[in-house]
Amino acid sequence: MSNWEKVIDFDKAGGMVPVITQDEATGEVLMMAYMNHEAFAETLRTGRACYFSRSRNRLWRKGEESGNVQEVRGVYVDCDADTLLLKVRQTGGAACHEGYPSCFFRRVADDKLQVIAGRVFDPRQVYNTNA
Amino acid sequence: MSNWEKVIDFDKAGGMVPVITQDEATGEVLMMAYMNHEAFAETLRTGRACYFSRSRNRLWRKGEESGNVQEVRGVYVDCDADTLLLKVRQTGGAACHEGYPSCFFRRVADDKLQVIAGRVFDPRQVYNTNA
Repeated sequence: MSNWEKVIDFDKAGGMVPVITQDEATGEVLMMAYMNHEAFAETLRTGRACYFSRSRNRLWRKGEESGNVQEVRGVYVDCDADTLLLKVRQTGGAACHEGYPSCFFRRVADDKLQVIAGRVFDPRQVYNTNA
Repeated sequence: MSNWEKVIDFDKAGGMVPVITQDEATGEVLMMAYMNHEAFAETLRTGRACYFSRSRNRLWRKGEESGNVQEVRGVYVDCDADTLLLKVRQTGGAACHEGYPSCFFRRVADDKLQVIAGRVFDPRQVYNTNA
């Protein structure tokens, strides 16, 4: 882990790259988030997905609250080297903070959104928030 | 197709949302691009993926040069409504302008990138450029 800053274009999106996270076993796309160089380095070093939270402006060790960590099975870089794809094993069977396996649990159906998945957990029992 | 601007958060990324495109049949993640509201509306209307090219600053009808259009099989919205997932049938078997099936044709292996896919076409024979 040394010169990834030269290989991966962290500059295009202000020090971060978008990261697509996919369940390695099922192929389901779980979520999209961002990594800065530090999050990327930690992800490679620990083998667990670490993102950069733009809303909290700090490293976001996925699963730090819920326990639903992501064990990294492979890291892929796109043609422009400005987007990453992570293949992971998703602990707990749910990546989404709303309790669904994937964040993409709603489908555009005609002129509305249709929920196409069931909840794996109840967010009110997992997160210490009033949301 | 009317009030998607109210449902989908086009504001967070300056009038655009990131879009992950996945091969519906194989589950392979093909690429990531962006849509503004106009591209999103056209995609829904025509059933073919239309993105917004940030480098060319115009609508980008995927396959307009290469012929490798993407027939849309499903459009999904994430929990924050700021990212889309498109499931498509990829004409020509290649989404990447470099001739690979997926833009994510390189894997992080130790301290370098390893090409893990073969080319489906030679970009020099498909695009009218000197690249």
